[in-house]
Amino acid sequence: RTKNMWKGFDFTLMVAGESGLGKSTLVNSLFLTDLYKDRKLLNAEERITQTVEITKHTVDIEEKGVKLKLTIVDTPGFGDAIDNTECWKSVADYIDQQFEQYFRDESGLNRKNIQDNRVHCCLYFISPFGHGLRPLDVEFMKALHEKVNIVPVLAKADTLTPTEVQKKKIKIREEIEQYGIKIYQFPDCDSDEDEEFKQQDLELKESIPFAVIGSNTVVEAKGKRVRGRLYPWGIVEVENSAHCDFVKLRNMLVRTHMQDLKDVTRETHYENYRAQCIQSMTRMVVKERNRKYAHVACG
Amino acid sequence: RTKNMWKGFDFTLMVAGESGLGKSTLVNSLFLTDLYKDRKLLNAEERITQTVEITKHTVDIEEKGVKLKLTIVDTPGFGDAIDNTECWKSVADYIDQQFEQYFRDESGLNRKNIQDNRVHCCLYFISPFGHGLRPLDVEFMKALHEKVNIVPVLAKADTLTPTEVQKKKIKIREEIEQYGIKIYQFPDCDSDEDEEFKQQDLELKESIPFAVIGSNTVVEAKGKRVRGRLYPWGIVEVENSAHCDFVKLRNMLVRTHMQDLKDVTRETHYENYRAQCIQSMTRMVVKERNRKYAHVACG
Repeated sequence: RTKNMWKGFDFTLMVAGESGLGKSTLVNSLFLTDLYKDRKLLNAEERITQTVEITKHTVDIEEKGVKLKLTIVDTPGFGDAIDNTECWKSVADYIDQQFEQYFRDESGLNRKNIQDNRVHCCLYFISPFGHGLRPLDVEFMKALHEKVNIVPVLAKADTLTPTEVQKKKIKIREEIEQYGIKIYQFPDCDSDEDEEFKQQDLELKESIPFAVIGSNTVVEAKGKRVRGRLYPWGIVEVENSAHCDFVKLRNMLVRTHMQDLKDVTRETHYENYRAQCIQSMTRMVVKERNRKYAHVACG
Repeated sequence: RTKNMWKGFDFTLMVAGESGLGKSTLVNSLFLTDLYKDRKLLNAEERITQTVEITKHTVDIEEKGVKLKLTIVDTPGFGDAIDNTECWKSVADYIDQQFEQYFRDESGLNRKNIQDNRVHCCLYFISPFGHGLRPLDVEFMKALHEKVNIVPVLAKADTLTPTEVQKKKIKIREEIEQYGIKIYQFPDCDSDEDEEFKQQDLELKESIPFAVIGSNTVVEAKGKRVRGRLYPWGIVEVENSAHCDFVKLRNMLVRTHMQDLKDVTRETHYENYRAQCIQSMTRMVVKERNRKYAHVACG
């Protein structure tokens, strides 16, 4: 048995959505790191010809004494071109490739130290400027919802007043329902849980899509230094729950629901992939056998 | 001579840019009207198949005792689809059609009461979330810049801190230069103007693209009632010049530069159209004549 140095959790989070919606800033805010220091922004001309590419960053973080190896999968270029037909395809392919690799490893001889690169969660960023979902959002989520746990977020929520946030959340939840999009479902809590826990659970479900604000700058608000954005009319505090759902989202991801996201990935999305794989392999074997018999009969 | 009841200016303003950037709200804020009461918003499914259409609203306003008949040309659906290739085309066609109509009328017998529907200015809305201009912005402005006075605005500027606004303005001005986009140029002021006027002129040129915020709601800020947006962290005041360039833009449009916008439309854009028209007509006549002579020679 080889010595395994890593004594904590690992988790792979994908971020997707139109560029400019603050994906990198939010990830950096969520995990208090700077994953994108070397990022180069493309200009309009470069973005016309650019295809969606996938980048990967890994970082070790510690959350309340628990070690976590976090991998962030980013999808720069998504929705950026003039023609965005099928721009979800490279994202879907990436997820499938991770399943395929895991399937190979699992079917091989050495099953002890498989590197698990399966994507456990996809934060999908919705523009606060849309009148609900955009065609591209619907297309993306429908193409991905059977491969990965989609958690929708309402990006850059400091552009909306509380009333607008509420209206937009309800509209988006209705549209998700209406278009038959299956986002990640929070598991129902046991009926014997206490009332406070049930209340929290209900609140979480009603926060979807999480309204988020990111910031990499620290500002001074009422004497204390906080992560926030300094406007002429006031200070937006990222971790103030009256300002956005940032803390709720982080708790959900890093504390309360990380294990469930991994379980659903393994038990549902990966098993679906595996079943399809085995099915099509069986079909190929049968076809090949029939071809051989036909050959014998003809010869 | 027919009696002309209208004793004021008329002006046609086009608004263009991705949906959700607050075009309607800004127009309503600029002219303190509600031009879009009957508007129906489309859902994602409807927007997939929708083409860009052109709508027209007319309103009579009075600005410091001066009457103004304002026509707003809107372009709903622009940039809304998954594939936005050539979605500027219907906008370009609309502008050409107005020129064509004017050319017909001007060439006809009764030139007294021509209805002038030529577009005098196009406010082009740039998303505050873009890292500068997007490919679609470049394509639109390059396709239209020789037909209409383009005034670029940075939409929903309350999503950006003052530093971000400044950076973004400089980036966008550089890109406009770099891509050879010819936006509307404020005329240089006479060298014998006083220093204050020159300073104002310089400030105006350095405001491009105007950072704007729209609002149709009146909120109470420091005891007075203002047009604004009420956030948990403060109140954004539309007409506060520390918050955005709204007042600058309105003054420019309605007071200081309206006549110049009309002059440039007549003297440059329309004359270009007319010259091209006459050229291609001449070419057709010559072609036809040659065809006839060829016919005679052959017969």
